Amino acid sequence: MTDATAPRRRGRPPRTAESAAGPATRDRILIAARTEFAERGYDKTSMRGIARAAGVDAALVHHYFGTKDEVFAASIEMSFEPAMVVPRLLEGPPDQLGERIARVFLGVWEDERTRAPLLAVVRSALTHEGAAKVLRGFVLRHLLRRIAAELSVPDPTLRAELAAAQMIGIAILRYVIEAEPLASAEVEQVVSLVAPTLQTYLTG
Amino acid sequence: MTDATAPRRRGRPPRTAESAAGPATRDRILIAARTEFAERGYDKTSMRGIARAAGVDAALVHHYFGTKDEVFAASIEMSFEPAMVVPRLLEGPPDQLGERIARVFLGVWEDERTRAPLLAVVRSALTHEGAAKVLRGFVLRHLLRRIAAELSVPDPTLRAELAAAQMIGIAILRYVIEAEPLASAEVEQVVSLVAPTLQTYLTG
Repeated sequence: MTDATAPRRRGRPPRTAESAAGPATRDRILIAARTEFAERGYDKTSMRGIARAAGVDAALVHHYFGTKDEVFAASIEMSFEPAMVVPRLLEGPPDQLGERIARVFLGVWEDERTRAPLLAVVRSALTHEGAAKVLRGFVLRHLLRRIAAELSVPDPTLRAELAAAQMIGIAILRYVIEAEPLASAEVEQVVSLVAPTLQTYLTG
Repeated sequence: MTDATAPRRRGRPPRTAESAAGPATRDRILIAARTEFAERGYDKTSMRGIARAAGVDAALVHHYFGTKDEVFAASIEMSFEPAMVVPRLLEGPPDQLGERIARVFLGVWEDERTRAPLLAVVRSALTHEGAAKVLRGFVLRHLLRRIAAELSVPDPTLRAELAAAQMIGIAILRYVIEAEPLASAEVEQVVSLVAPTLQTYLTG
């Protein structure tokens, strides 16, 4: 409904809010939104609560994002920014593709600054259908299709998704459930075991 | 703390509750608990609420299970009963092991009666540390170690866990997030793509 290039809708934020606007404010709202979604869950997060956490007027949150679903979608996009590196990884030597993806993926999850927001998104999506819908649209459109376009195997999108499933399962067992022995395994050991799996899915 | 063979603790349930006791009552409490955990989440589920849903006195729930953590552990065990078939699958022809596991696992998730309780457990574990702790103990003790004992590869437990990670990731993308194309793919197509992955982890 809301066009990204023309987000202004009925009403207008008060002059003080308007003067605080800009890319930095938008980012501040998104970071606050991410924290709210992570801590309270999707259902209990409100536009008003996001505004309060960001230190801006609620009208400004509506001004930038329209609805809660749209803030959530934008915060997913921000949280998945590290994942956006994956299509670029396809450009290197094809026979080390699985290894490159495994190493970058685990690197993102090893780093607590990038892990927390991803975790928040995954948790929201697993417990709220509205959040799941936003996430599945995003995963397919931004990630799987872009990867699949570079592959020359049959069913490239399905294969890309099975590779993603492998990495998501690892993230959940290693970083969320913290199930041993995976939780304490060395990154490089996991990379060496997982790389051939990803390689087989993506290059056949 | 509580020994499974001698669950009776201080105090005792009233005579009426005692007379209703037995394996059927225990199962009724567990089924009620599973529903409560699934619908309310771990935090909001109470011993009293479980008793009410099962139509028994709260003292009886305490009598059988002691604490909420113990009810949760027992309901995980009940929900994972279908997974207990996995160690048995190791007995067939070794070169079709991956295929057998993939087919049985997807069969359990395709069937809504077995999917719902598994989903409830996964959701609880992803959103509550107490539940995650119970699940990780269970997964390692009952599932991974039993599978690993039958494997003749290096790091058998880690490899079994990576195979589990693949299947958990598929369950989440296909049945929870419902991300395409995996959500609509034929079971047999998924089996044929995933079987070699499991096979490689488990037999090298």
